[in-house]
Formats: sequence, structure tokens, C-alpha cells
Amino acid sequence: MQKSIAGPEIERLIKLLSKLPGLGPRSARKAALALVKRREDMLLPLADALHEAVEKITECQQCGSIDTCQPCSICADTRRDRTTIVVIEEVGDLWALERAGVVNGQYHVIGGHLSPLDGIGPNDLNIPKLVERASDPEVTEIILALNATVEGQSTVHYIKDLLTPINVAVSEIQKGVPMGGELDYLDEGTLATALKSRRRL
Amino acid sequence: MQKSIAGPEIERLIKLLSKLPGLGPRSARKAALALVKRREDMLLPLADALHEAVEKITECQQCGSIDTCQPCSICADTRRDRTTIVVIEEVGDLWALERAGVVNGQYHVIGGHLSPLDGIGPNDLNIPKLVERASDPEVTEIILALNATVEGQSTVHYIKDLLTPINVAVSEIQKGVPMGGELDYLDEGTLATALKSRRRL
Repeated sequence: MQKSIAGPEIERLIKLLSKLPGLGPRSARKAALALVKRREDMLLPLADALHEAVEKITECQQCGSIDTCQPCSICADTRRDRTTIVVIEEVGDLWALERAGVVNGQYHVIGGHLSPLDGIGPNDLNIPKLVERASDPEVTEIILALNATVEGQSTVHYIKDLLTPINVAVSEIQKGVPMGGELDYLDEGTLATALKSRRRL
Repeated sequence: MQKSIAGPEIERLIKLLSKLPGLGPRSARKAALALVKRREDMLLPLADALHEAVEKITECQQCGSIDTCQPCSICADTRRDRTTIVVIEEVGDLWALERAGVVNGQYHVIGGHLSPLDGIGPNDLNIPKLVERASDPEVTEIILALNATVEGQSTVHYIKDLLTPINVAVSEIQKGVPMGGELDYLDEGTLATALKSRRRL
């Protein structure tokens, strides 16, 4: 807002909300109003939830995910397979895989991808810890599930090279036509990859 | 999330964030992650801002807007014109008019529009207080600036009828082609209104 309308407290709230991904200045104003209007069932609970998050949520020192226990509940779960580690870029990717229920092994969040232009090198990512975990004799396979972007793929190659001296299988998730995907709507890159990595029936 | 991934505290935070207008479940997860990742410059300040909002922000008993003082800073501002009251549906509409800097008078937020289907009648809106304010001899004009929707317009007619016995001028903001609007992109209703309410040059 250009000029103060409803006091500095409200403007500060709007400004902070507008920093959240997915909220612009306009939707941040709407969100702030909704919060103030629904004091009991939105404003108070959210304020409490944030304070609880400040106090309780930490990064897992083992896998880099976030949780309220140390190590996180996935790393601590003895029923999960300890021979396989799925490597992802962000915690959100871990959540997506858990929602899909397709991983029974461990995870390792590297916290992004290599991006020389943004000054993000191997030491800025949670990669040294991955090498340490991959060296554990119990671990037999590292599955790289990074994004199918240029940066994700160059990070895949970097990690693959780094893990080559270690006695562990390194694989990457398949790329191709997404389920339900119609060829007419897919980009050339996806079509080229899907064709190139075709499988015999 | 179907199953617990990162502890109940994080899921509660995501659930609360997803209730904000403009945030769905997916963007709420992204927002929660961004908050936890940027603890010092996002999570802590937002938690504080919300607690401050809980403590300080109240509804103005005069006009229905929100502020940290009572009456609000606009009602309390002696430099503003006290003869004109602009009636709007929501506090967000007040902010939009203040950003545009087009009102020098007072405001009155009725808090929505009449909507019999949703069970919202005149007594659910801040209308009795408007009648009281309009009866003040100092007030000479009530400008209705409600939304140009079916509900907004029926509320305009209701308020107009209600204020008729009072010695006060009642007007409504003009409807027509928005500035910069291209006829080819406008709906029939707008075109019909713009044509009907044409003005002599």
C-alpha cells in the first residue's frame, strides 16, 4: 500500500504475508483481512501454529528433511528399508513421493540443485552428507529423483560422478510421457525422451 | 496430506495456511516450507505480526473498518470531510478507494451484501448504524459504492429505500466501460449499461 490506511501492524502483516510463495500484494491483503475477520478460528490458531513451528520444527541431521523429532520420523522408522536412499531436491518433493506412497526406503534432501549462475556449488547443498551415507555398507542403491530440469539433470550427473568410487548402485527415475498425458499437449523434450527411452513389449 | 509425513505441528500449519484466500493445499505446503526454511526473516516475524494483530486490531465502532485505534484513523481524522459517507461492502473495498485517493469523506463498511439464499438479511449487515449516521444533520450525502453484482445492486436498492425518509442525498457510483477497457473484451451487461447511461458531450 502506498499510504498507511489501517495502522502499521496491519501493513506489516500484509507485507509478511505477501512474501509467501503464491501470495502477491493483492491476495496478501485479502488474506490479512480474512485473518482479522475470523479472529477465533483463523488468526489465533495460525499465530499459535507459527509459534509452535518456531519452537519445535528442526531439520533432520540425517536426511535434511524437516520434522519435530531428531532424527525425523522417516529416518527413525525401523520398518522402512535401509538399503535404498532416494535423493530429492526439496522437502516438498519428499512429501510428494510420500503422498504417492511409492518409496519404502530412506530419503536424502540435498536442498536444491547446482546453479553456478546463482553461486550454488556442491558445498552449498547437502551432498557431503549423502556421500557419507552412501558409503555405509548397509546401503546398496542410491535413486536420484531430482527434477527433470537442466539444473536438476546436471546435479544428477555431478552426484553420479561423485558416487562412482563408492560400492553402491546409482540409478535415476525414468523420464517419459506422464500417466494420462496426451502426446498432442506434451513438449518436444518429453516426446524425444519418451521415444528414445522406449521399452520392448 | 493423506498420511502424516512431518509431524502434526507442520500439518496443522499447512491446514491453517490452506484456509487463507488464494492458497490451496499445494501452495499452503509451499508456504509452510518457505516459512520453516526462512525461520529468522519469515517465520518469526509472521508469528509476531499475528500475535500483535490478535492484541491490537479491532473493528471501528463508527464505520466498521478495522484499525488499531478506536475510532479508526479515518473516522478520527478531522481534516476529512464529514458531510459525505461512502458505503462499501468490505474493508478491502475501502482500502482500494484509499489507494486510489479518490475519497475525502468518511466511509461505512456494511460487511457484505444482502443474500437471502445464504440467509443474510439487513440485520446481519452493518446497516442500522448507517441509518443512524445518515440521520446526523452534519451528513448531507451518502454515496453507495457497492459491487456491480446482482447482490450488490439489490443491496443498493434496499439501502436507497431505507434512507428515503431521511433528509440526505443518496447517490450511487457510475457504471460503464472501465478506463482502458476495450469494447471487444467487455461483457454484454457492461456494454448495455454504458450505452444506456451515456452522457451528452
